[in-house]
Amino acid sequence: MKKEEFSRPLNLKNVKITDGFWHAAQETVRREVIPYQWEALNDRVEGAAPSYCMHNFRAAARLMERKRKNPAFAEPSYSFRGFETLPPDPAHLEPDRFYGFVFQDSDFYKWVEAAAYSLANHPDPRLEATVEEAVEAICAAQHDSGYLDTYYILNGMDRAFTNLKDHHELYCLGHLVEGAVAYYEATGKDKLLRAACRFADCVDARFGPEPEKRKGYPGHEIAEMALARLYEATGEERYRRLSQFFLDQRGTAPNYFLQEDKERAAYEGKPAPTGGQERYAYYQAHKPVREQEEAVGHAVRAGYLYSGMADVARLTGDEALFAACQRLWNSIVKEKLYITGGVGGTVHGEAFSYPFDLPNDAAYSETCAAIALAFFARRMLEIQPKAQYADVMELALYNTVLAGMALDGKSFFYVNPLEVNPAACKADERLRHVEPVRQKWFGCACCPPNIARTVSSVGAYAFTENETTLFTHLYIGGGLTTRQGLSLTVESGLPWTGGAKMKVETDAPAKYTLAFRKPGWCETPVFTAPAHAERTEKDGYVYFTGLWRTGDQIQMDFPMEVRLNGASPLVRENLGLAAVTCGPLCYCLEQADNGGGLHLLRVDAAKLGEGKREPIAIGGREMRAITLPGFCQKPPEPGAPLYTVYARPEETPADLKFVPYYAWANRGPGEMRVWVRVC
Amino acid sequence: MKKEEFSRPLNLKNVKITDGFWHAAQETVRREVIPYQWEALNDRVEGAAPSYCMHNFRAAARLMERKRKNPAFAEPSYSFRGFETLPPDPAHLEPDRFYGFVFQDSDFYKWVEAAAYSLANHPDPRLEATVEEAVEAICAAQHDSGYLDTYYILNGMDRAFTNLKDHHELYCLGHLVEGAVAYYEATGKDKLLRAACRFADCVDARFGPEPEKRKGYPGHEIAEMALARLYEATGEERYRRLSQFFLDQRGTAPNYFLQEDKERAAYEGKPAPTGGQERYAYYQAHKPVREQEEAVGHAVRAGYLYSGMADVARLTGDEALFAACQRLWNSIVKEKLYITGGVGGTVHGEAFSYPFDLPNDAAYSETCAAIALAFFARRMLEIQPKAQYADVMELALYNTVLAGMALDGKSFFYVNPLEVNPAACKADERLRHVEPVRQKWFGCACCPPNIARTVSSVGAYAFTENETTLFTHLYIGGGLTTRQGLSLTVESGLPWTGGAKMKVETDAPAKYTLAFRKPGWCETPVFTAPAHAERTEKDGYVYFTGLWRTGDQIQMDFPMEVRLNGASPLVRENLGLAAVTCGPLCYCLEQADNGGGLHLLRVDAAKLGEGKREPIAIGGREMRAITLPGFCQKPPEPGAPLYTVYARPEETPADLKFVPYYAWANRGPGEMRVWVRVC
Repeated sequence: MKKEEFSRPLNLKNVKITDGFWHAAQETVRREVIPYQWEALNDRVEGAAPSYCMHNFRAAARLMERKRKNPAFAEPSYSFRGFETLPPDPAHLEPDRFYGFVFQDSDFYKWVEAAAYSLANHPDPRLEATVEEAVEAICAAQHDSGYLDTYYILNGMDRAFTNLKDHHELYCLGHLVEGAVAYYEATGKDKLLRAACRFADCVDARFGPEPEKRKGYPGHEIAEMALARLYEATGEERYRRLSQFFLDQRGTAPNYFLQEDKERAAYEGKPAPTGGQERYAYYQAHKPVREQEEAVGHAVRAGYLYSGMADVARLTGDEALFAACQRLWNSIVKEKLYITGGVGGTVHGEAFSYPFDLPNDAAYSETCAAIALAFFARRMLEIQPKAQYADVMELALYNTVLAGMALDGKSFFYVNPLEVNPAACKADERLRHVEPVRQKWFGCACCPPNIARTVSSVGAYAFTENETTLFTHLYIGGGLTTRQGLSLTVESGLPWTGGAKMKVETDAPAKYTLAFRKPGWCETPVFTAPAHAERTEKDGYVYFTGLWRTGDQIQMDFPMEVRLNGASPLVRENLGLAAVTCGPLCYCLEQADNGGGLHLLRVDAAKLGEGKREPIAIGGREMRAITLPGFCQKPPEPGAPLYTVYARPEETPADLKFVPYYAWANRGPGEMRVWVRVC
Repeated sequence: MKKEEFSRPLNLKNVKITDGFWHAAQETVRREVIPYQWEALNDRVEGAAPSYCMHNFRAAARLMERKRKNPAFAEPSYSFRGFETLPPDPAHLEPDRFYGFVFQDSDFYKWVEAAAYSLANHPDPRLEATVEEAVEAICAAQHDSGYLDTYYILNGMDRAFTNLKDHHELYCLGHLVEGAVAYYEATGKDKLLRAACRFADCVDARFGPEPEKRKGYPGHEIAEMALARLYEATGEERYRRLSQFFLDQRGTAPNYFLQEDKERAAYEGKPAPTGGQERYAYYQAHKPVREQEEAVGHAVRAGYLYSGMADVARLTGDEALFAACQRLWNSIVKEKLYITGGVGGTVHGEAFSYPFDLPNDAAYSETCAAIALAFFARRMLEIQPKAQYADVMELALYNTVLAGMALDGKSFFYVNPLEVNPAACKADERLRHVEPVRQKWFGCACCPPNIARTVSSVGAYAFTENETTLFTHLYIGGGLTTRQGLSLTVESGLPWTGGAKMKVETDAPAKYTLAFRKPGWCETPVFTAPAHAERTEKDGYVYFTGLWRTGDQIQMDFPMEVRLNGASPLVRENLGLAAVTCGPLCYCLEQADNGGGLHLLRVDAAKLGEGKREPIAIGGREMRAITLPGFCQKPPEPGAPLYTVYARPEETPADLKFVPYYAWANRGPGEMRVWVRVC
């Protein structure tokens, strides 16, 4: 870990994405997703599961208002009312009652973060006015103590902070901080930021290493990276220390969650829980974070934790913590990563499965988990610019993250399988988590706003900078201005062609290093730079150092071949199968192009060179399809015997047409598969 | 359906199994399983889940005794006490309380049926005395009304027959009848039979087509076939009519289970259930049985129902009912049958999955479901002697049924997967139902006694007879005496070699037909009979009709080749895979012979002819292993990348050693797989 290599994303006001691919996605988010989600937060979308999010804030604000007017007003005392996800009529909610999941507040925080990134790029007074109005409600709902979670404000503060494990107060804090900092950075307005600081202060007063404080930490991680971000936005050391405390404390003995479970059991008059702390692996609290070697448990939580660990390692120079990050990174990418950039092999706990268990049809591969992986990858890149991190980040962003959203921005996947048979999804209880078409909105609506905030901030993943160097991790077209005032324009043909260039514009020539990732998917990347620039290479990055002048340009040429990929033979599901990629994109077969019975198709590995790339329009977007020669096994006659003497299957030649995975399921329900037979 | 083709099993007193293969299994049942299970029924096996079965009978007997002594004695009134499967200390049960599952009584009934078959073949005064003592307790527990289910007798008769759907009163009736008839046929003792008739009469008084009777039928089928058997044992028409009523009524509208659910909801003050009758597919009560086309729902229930349908079709000459049996048979064997003779692709509902969904590692393939399939097959054979029924019956009996029991008879499989990786079973929640080693006894102990009764009565599957013909369905060595008094001796090398012969012994020459199945696994069966016998063929059976004299013999020669089998390409799990069979046996790879990583092995289909069969001893039993030439894919280096450019895998030649599936998991935990890569 070398401090001089550290880098950070640019303020998004200084990065304008303009290329056809990502700009289109950002525009979909800006025009469709953000307005739609605001309606959803206010329970005004017919046919979608209600959010109750803004209802809860407004109810809490009314309660706080009554209290402020009448200091003798008695706040509610806690009585557990259960998870009311579907009251009979969302139009007639009891005005003082909390509805929805315990983490429902976070729906707004994710939304405001997405709105903030969008505003940074694309000022929009109407959207800003909507945010302002909402921020008023949120701040009005905040408890005098600084506490801000409407579940306990409405149900009774006497039981606040008694179930860190499963009630998401610290998760809500984390998302509040993320949203507030983003909104502050985009607009300069600090009302929500101050509310976030007050809540963080309230938590800091209660939890920490000091003897009088509780030793808790989040059940669902995110506060760790959020507090690091709050520290960087405000300079307040206490927030960094609180984040560090959460990490240091996590999974140590005696286990806090076990202690909490026991206290709660005593309170509820139930038998005390028994058993060791391995049960807390779901929460990554089974052992101290510095001792963790295998990525385990709920995949989103895990990714958020590892991101927070990387942030704190960077901020504190903690080598042991960074070493743990590297081990966990390797555990993911060498044993637990789908070729689509997704993670989480099992629906049970929405979790990482055991090493090399990567089922295609029963995959969980939650959209949010791919987002969390991109978070983690970027933070590793911030510490060490190594192409391996950017390769995985690119895979996650271009494939699973984008697949989470329909091309029209109107429906979303929570789960991203690599093989779908709609009939099986319907008939097979084991696939009950797999939907063959995207859904409008979920009761547990983490993924849609998470996609919105990630897509809107993709500029923060493409580029990072430090005092001397601008790193280009992803080849996304746009304009940016570095800290030193260097204006740069990037043009990119990705993900369809491998050409890109960066042009310099500057009033005053400046000495600076421009660093570029060599994409892992390209065998022979070529960089052409002005003669004055000195070229070096390290860890998959090419560095050009020079005195840059207007008109200088660096040209990238990344020959983009259609590639057949094999999986490690330890991935039992994929023996005899191959997956098609081209550049950063993973491709798949869809019934819309190939008819039903996709498992009967076989790609001819020897004829890969005869493959064709050709334009295709899906959901009104132009993209490229890949057609490869192969075979189709003859389907059996109706009523044929189930078992016969083995014979080499009868096959007829067939063209296999692949489309980008991110664009699948935009043409109605049908079969899909990423891994195709190759022998 | 032609009456003259109908046949029935011989009384088991007239069939003595002597061959090495099945006699060994029967001896294991007689020496180990039956005594062990008696201990288990009495909760005297340490480390095994308690049964509570005999406790419940004795508790009910005490209650009835008190009532008989004091006519004013108040029976308990129903209060639901829940499924108490594991009270703190089985040695200190409350004497008047019911423990275990609602169907716990059936544990004894299955046991007494197994004991009866064993006594038929192998008289054993000590075992008979044990049975007698138990029968006293069972009969003492019977309610004055004839009702006999200790769950309601102990918990309150006021709620008897209010939950036919999920409380197994009619299931217990069915098993009582099966056990009682078997014991009567083996010993001539009718005390238990009379108790069974009284319970059947009690049920008959309550359910039936008459306007004053309820229109219910069993939630878990078996009473249908049991009542048919009771009719054949006693000649009492009412039992046949009751069986027929249960079948006629099942799945008709308005649905009885829905009505019952509504009544129970009203009684319990819960909201009335909504929805149509498709929800009762689990119980095969989603539509009238004559209209059912696809085998669905709980696989054991389904097999028992179809068996009852076949019995009633035979007894009543009901062509429509038989046509339904044929459709359901085809649904199973053409779309839902494992190559091991197992059925039930999914743990969810222990059920048939959708057509061609036959996962190997997540298979349910319950031992009892294979037994139920053998029941169904034999009943189809009783109606129509077609080799296709016997082929499937043989597959189920020689493979999945036998695999359910350890070779030493001391542990049992409930679930019979076709692929096991012990590490995955431990780590993967989706495989929580799959055990890599057999268990001693289960709380829900249906399978162990079901295996015991089936193995003990295998003679009833091998041979059936009618006035003119003796059918040999399975080639099992032994001696038998036909209704006409013809003594026959069968010698058989199966399942290891394909030679068998039947010798005749008779005091008076008799005209008779001896019919033999041509095994589906043999391409060129050769039958050699005395010149005087006239040979005909039909439906895979060869018929020899003649005037048989002592010394006549018929010789069978069934060349037994090692066979590689392929599955229909609609079975997605098995594309590119093959399974090894030889004669009636299905084979598998085990880690004990081949090391770990069985999925890396590939059999060389072109070199099948170089395969070797050689002796192997497993669990102290002599059997044959099959060694085939093939390849082993090189495992990856530790830390190798998860995905690389596809290349044909590096392989080294390897000998693949297969052992019979029924004998797997007798050498400690390890990997196993039936389907092996072939390309």
